[in-house]
Amino acid sequence: MSDPERGFPEAEHRRRVSALQGEMAKAEMDALLLTTPPDVHYVTGFLTRFWESPARPWFVLVPASGDPVAVIPSIGFDLMSKTWIGDIRTWDAPHPDDDGVTLLSSAISDLVPERGWIGLPMGLETHLRMPIADYARVAELSAPRRVSDATAVIQRVREIKSEAEIEKIRAACRVADAAFARVPEFARTGAPLDGVFRDFQVALLQEGADWVSYVAGGAGSGGYGDVISPADARPLQSGDVLMLDTGAVRDGYFCDFDRNFAIGKADDAARRAYAALHVATDAAISTIRPGMRAADLHRVIVDALRAEGATPGGGRLGHGLGLTLTEWPSLTPLDRTELREGMVLTIEPGVKIAPGRIMVHEENIVLRNTGAELLSYRAPAELQVLE
Amino acid sequence: MSDPERGFPEAEHRRRVSALQGEMAKAEMDALLLTTPPDVHYVTGFLTRFWESPARPWFVLVPASGDPVAVIPSIGFDLMSKTWIGDIRTWDAPHPDDDGVTLLSSAISDLVPERGWIGLPMGLETHLRMPIADYARVAELSAPRRVSDATAVIQRVREIKSEAEIEKIRAACRVADAAFARVPEFARTGAPLDGVFRDFQVALLQEGADWVSYVAGGAGSGGYGDVISPADARPLQSGDVLMLDTGAVRDGYFCDFDRNFAIGKADDAARRAYAALHVATDAAISTIRPGMRAADLHRVIVDALRAEGATPGGGRLGHGLGLTLTEWPSLTPLDRTELREGMVLTIEPGVKIAPGRIMVHEENIVLRNTGAELLSYRAPAELQVLE
Repeated sequence: MSDPERGFPEAEHRRRVSALQGEMAKAEMDALLLTTPPDVHYVTGFLTRFWESPARPWFVLVPASGDPVAVIPSIGFDLMSKTWIGDIRTWDAPHPDDDGVTLLSSAISDLVPERGWIGLPMGLETHLRMPIADYARVAELSAPRRVSDATAVIQRVREIKSEAEIEKIRAACRVADAAFARVPEFARTGAPLDGVFRDFQVALLQEGADWVSYVAGGAGSGGYGDVISPADARPLQSGDVLMLDTGAVRDGYFCDFDRNFAIGKADDAARRAYAALHVATDAAISTIRPGMRAADLHRVIVDALRAEGATPGGGRLGHGLGLTLTEWPSLTPLDRTELREGMVLTIEPGVKIAPGRIMVHEENIVLRNTGAELLSYRAPAELQVLE
Repeated sequence: MSDPERGFPEAEHRRRVSALQGEMAKAEMDALLLTTPPDVHYVTGFLTRFWESPARPWFVLVPASGDPVAVIPSIGFDLMSKTWIGDIRTWDAPHPDDDGVTLLSSAISDLVPERGWIGLPMGLETHLRMPIADYARVAELSAPRRVSDATAVIQRVREIKSEAEIEKIRAACRVADAAFARVPEFARTGAPLDGVFRDFQVALLQEGADWVSYVAGGAGSGGYGDVISPADARPLQSGDVLMLDTGAVRDGYFCDFDRNFAIGKADDAARRAYAALHVATDAAISTIRPGMRAADLHRVIVDALRAEGATPGGGRLGHGLGLTLTEWPSLTPLDRTELREGMVLTIEPGVKIAPGRIMVHEENIVLRNTGAELLSYRAPAELQVLE
């Protein structure tokens, strides 16, 4: 399989905008204000690591009809000019007195009638990437226009991936698959965990990641303590379970899955936990269908783990995936989001083995009309032992 | 030189909190609400790449006196427990109906008197990392307590680095120095730019980066077009100027500097541009003193470039550095921030060589009582040609 071409054709971006405008019409919004890297990327195709600098806000306005308008720091003009966006308005940022406030407000006035509504993502899993004092000024300058919550507008559109997007996530998954296959080269008894994390990142880059936005994991005797700590210098020991998890990025899209390995040997509890996770993942993969709710799939996983005699971990057991490492919905008992054809999801069961010892397993899928299609290469059914 | 130990002693965190509380007292704030990775890390020592997931908000409250309180998703409890923070309150996030809102509001009620003030960073270079609708609910639930802008509180404290912080930034700079020294191994005529970016990231990891949050650059005949575009597959050609810029991270602290290389040969315009940048950087390094304003240093750089017959680039010509790739202040004509002893800064002059061709040079320094101390290893005075 060859990698997909970089970027997207203009037609794909136009379809996205048109889908957003359809949702905006239903919600009676006259413009959508977007400020975060994934939202701006989704609409414009503007892809850069420069977001790492928190210094400057960036804005894209999607009007009720017609093309989006970018209101951005002048340092981004050249790169934005290479996208399909024609209306690009810039200011010299950071500006201590007016960091785009007047320019953004004026663009809002151009696009939104005085009695109109500005849609802004304000709900779960969103944030506003601009100074909140400046937001208050923009709202004031835009009055009598009002602001309403556009979380559902952006989420119902972004959560359904196009085939082109799915190919990009698949390409990111292939990178991680290839890097996971190389873990036996560097993870062995005596190797310090921080060195393993480093070697794994190198492998991800060498296998085709543009950059590695996320690597996490853990290692401990028969299981690990948590999955978000940075690596320490403790050497791997025989009997450890090592987990590596990655969000490698290729052309702006993430994979997000993990693999577990036993170092030297695996005890029965670890083997049983691994087997239960594998069965529960299979259960989710074979059961998931469009029309189920996120909470339903959570229930499938929990039930499968319990049927295997395992103790399910808390927290969410999977989530959306795409332009960011994690997207909505969340596989939790409370998330009633409908699972729909075209969603890309992680299936991520976790179990508690003993106090302070857990194990987590993760695969990436796309939900088709008929069920799950794997994007990651299915992990082996038995815990792999690295000699 | 050996690397500094990981993390900070509790005493360092207590000094930071005490400095924040001193500024809070002057600003008459009864608690400080922090939500971003660098602010949370600064106060607590909580370091994780898990912030890459935008799903969950995280909160730290610094009271007017006494120890901070962490109000965080339960997935972070274990890691937060390893820090010096004793009061950790958790909820199962993401929660569709109440994603920490009640818990945070209740913590605010515990710490802030009814007629008191909650400080929140609201100004330039800040953002609120939580859903804005939830923020509105927190503000409502916390009434009659009021919110005021704590941008200056956090910035005046964070901008002065301790010796322990300076050592961490120095360690990150050493990583980048060593990786830049290896650029001749992989950057040559015919090498595609995206491969060079990839090899450079590998070198950064191999030389000791924990992770590579930022790599940018450019390449073009006699100069490059911009400095924020991702790399394309165009092979380097003889006469190209290649620039690589990095924010490599070690123990949570960034470096941020770049290096320029000529591929095969360099034309006179490129050599002159490079020389002017070098002279302007020297001018900034030798002139900077505590008590100057950011705008004053911008002026020094622009004047030095003009004296060399070069055309200064727009935008900022340097900035703060530390827990993020870029921090305030900004070396612009408008930034009146006082430069103070203990600030870590980038000196980043840029020139326009021709339409669509620029060159940018960058070094990292710490401002001492007597002037600049280099943290990066000073770039050579002449543009290095890679054969």
